[in-house]
Amino acid sequence: MPETHANPGSASALDVLLPWGDLDERHGPWPSGVRVHVWDGLTPEDELPPQVLESAGFWVMPYAVPGVERLLPRFRGLRAVQSLSAGVEKVLPLLPGGTSLHNGRGLHDASTAEHALGLILAAQRDLPRWAEDQRQGRWEPHFTRSLADCRVAVIGYGSIGAALERRLLACEAEVVRVARRARPEEDVHAVTDLPKLLPDVGIAVLVLPETPATEGLLGEAELAALPDGALVVNVGRGRTLDTQALVAQLRAGRLRAALDVTDPEPLPADHPLWQCPGALITPHVAGGSAAFRPRAERLIVEQVRRYAAGEPLLNAFPRA
Amino acid sequence: MPETHANPGSASALDVLLPWGDLDERHGPWPSGVRVHVWDGLTPEDELPPQVLESAGFWVMPYAVPGVERLLPRFRGLRAVQSLSAGVEKVLPLLPGGTSLHNGRGLHDASTAEHALGLILAAQRDLPRWAEDQRQGRWEPHFTRSLADCRVAVIGYGSIGAALERRLLACEAEVVRVARRARPEEDVHAVTDLPKLLPDVGIAVLVLPETPATEGLLGEAELAALPDGALVVNVGRGRTLDTQALVAQLRAGRLRAALDVTDPEPLPADHPLWQCPGALITPHVAGGSAAFRPRAERLIVEQVRRYAAGEPLLNAFPRA
Ligand SMILES: NC(=O)c1ccc[n+]([C@@H]2O[C@H](COP(=O)([O-])OP(=O)(O)OC[C@H]3O[C@@H](n4cnc5c(N)ncnc54)[C@H](OP(=O)(O)O)[C@@H]3O)[C@@H](O)[C@H]2O)c1
Ligand SMILES: NC(=O)c1ccc[n+]([C@@H]2O[C@H](COP(=O)([O-])OP(=O)(O)OC[C@H]3O[C@@H](n4cnc5c(N)ncnc54)[C@H](OP(=O)(O)O)[C@@H]3O)[C@@H](O)[C@H]2O)c1
Repeated sequence: MPETHANPGSASALDVLLPWGDLDERHGPWPSGVRVHVWDGLTPEDELPPQVLESAGFWVMPYAVPGVERLLPRFRGLRAVQSLSAGVEKVLPLLPGGTSLHNGRGLHDASTAEHALGLILAAQRDLPRWAEDQRQGRWEPHFTRSLADCRVAVIGYGSIGAALERRLLACEAEVVRVARRARPEEDVHAVTDLPKLLPDVGIAVLVLPETPATEGLLGEAELAALPDGALVVNVGRGRTLDTQALVAQLRAGRLRAALDVTDPEPLPADHPLWQCPGALITPHVAGGSAAFRPRAERLIVEQVRRYAAGEPLLNAFPRA
Repeated sequence: MPETHANPGSASALDVLLPWGDLDERHGPWPSGVRVHVWDGLTPEDELPPQVLESAGFWVMPYAVPGVERLLPRFRGLRAVQSLSAGVEKVLPLLPGGTSLHNGRGLHDASTAEHALGLILAAQRDLPRWAEDQRQGRWEPHFTRSLADCRVAVIGYGSIGAALERRLLACEAEVVRVARRARPEEDVHAVTDLPKLLPDVGIAVLVLPETPATEGLLGEAELAALPDGALVVNVGRGRTLDTQALVAQLRAGRLRAALDVTDPEPLPADHPLWQCPGALITPHVAGGSAAFRPRAERLIVEQVRRYAAGEPLLNAFPRA
């Protein structure tokens, strides 16, 4: 049931709606004047007192609760909304006029980069095969690929991409940075250089947001440009990769894939991707690990402090 | 069939027996006077010309060929033997008097540390569960553990341990270094401090050689000292971990494990470890990846150069 932590003695209360109720236990008392309401997105929204939808000026949306953005049009005085995701493509169309949007940029860097690294290592070191052998009680060692010495293209060299690069370099891999435009001083290549870059890349990692420009960015031609046996990784958004073209390459045994995000999502039980040879699939869990909560809590506490003090909130979307 | 690359014009030939025959194609010609014979350990040893066993002064043993050390007593003039493994416990008892032993210290750092990291990430991020869900076509996300923010004890902070530490730090984990004796200036703890250290450790990684002192080093008491849900990783040698005590902890659901080495090895099909809940097993493949060959070739070429020049070889075992 939604709870309300009134801040006694506040004259004109600043109402905020948060997904967790116990942050003050770990981070100290809320600023004076702040009245905290809690909704975790899992209890029915009918249990939210109508008064909260009237009064809340700042809403931190529950994380990884599909469809939670449907509540947005029902707020009456929302000044700012905080998503704990980096990707906010589903929130944007429902954002009330005059409400600022703040995203989870940075919160998922550690968790998502770590999961991407786990997918890469699992694929290079044949972990799915060893898991199958384990089930059969079969001890049959063979040599595997490695990550060390590989050239890895990080396509979407942003916040998560940079966190992934630090991990890849520690693993003695080489990184090719790709973003929208070239930034030669940072050794970042423009996405338009991909046709030139892909033939020399052993692993291509997508860490792209979903926008009209990124849809199908890694398509049939780009996949065909990768060398035989290359690994395609996606931890950004499913639609940035052409699923049909990928399935064809996997079935031909020409490429391998490790995907945390897919198109569509969830992937239906009978979708061909599930059983493609050389495919490793996780159900959009890269951002959702224990690394997330402490980082999310620190952001929420800072945003509420700024909200109460009338200071600009962090992580405005789109970025200035 | 074993091949022989005579070096034309050499007066008194220096015979060496190597596992691969094509190194000079990538690394330039052998030093003058060197006569290279090749045996990969897979073709029957009877095909080795008896003359090679008479004349070879330096033998580089084929890597990861079980039992290959049985050839040692049959050499007549062996001055030095190179193992491409870091662990040489099986070679030592067969080493002819007057023959120096050189191990593969360093060759496996990248490969083994990378595999250890892969095992840790697979365990923390539930990859075996996602692989099972994939087989069933099931999209059921849940939050997982992370490696970021974990405290990891590296028990055996040597060559591989240091390589693993670099990877763990890039993943935002904290590392506790453990070796034989404390080295306070390097923040290395003595192994005798384990009872004090283990209760605060989320992941304990063994990277120990097999010696009388390391046998069962992580035993019943040490496992009991780990907190609930801790992950035990072994990429050193199987016998340094008490298998029976571990099986009991796994069956109780109290600990998790990710093992590349086991006791015994190979693990028989009916061994209880295979099916223990929370266990992830790979068949001693940490050192055997694509990262190994280029590093091994560079060492062999340098050792042959030193051997021909009469200089001391690298990686003498035991270390001075
Ligand atoms: N799987 C998960 O659980 C999970 C978790 C968190 C986030 N994500 C996804 O990951 C995405 C990236 O997150 P982030 O925090 O790293 O975002 P970010 O810091 O904004 O970085 C995005 C990167 O993508 C690049 N990019 C954008 N449009 C592009 C285009 N048309 N062509 C080429 N490059 C383009 C940007 O290039 P510039 O540098 O040139 O701007 C930037 O380098 C998010 O949008 C979200 O969808 C997934
Ligand atoms: N799974 C695989 O495929 C694979 C591949 C390669 C190697 N290995 C195994 O990994 C082992 C380590 O390789 P490495 O190259 O890292 O060796 P290393 O550089 O010699 O390091 C060994 C470490 O173990 C410590 N140690 C030795 N005896 C100990 C004891 N009784 N108590 C506590 N610590 C002890 C040493 O402590 P000090 O620093 O105090 O001397 C050192 O830190 C090898 O011996 C090999 O068995 C396995």
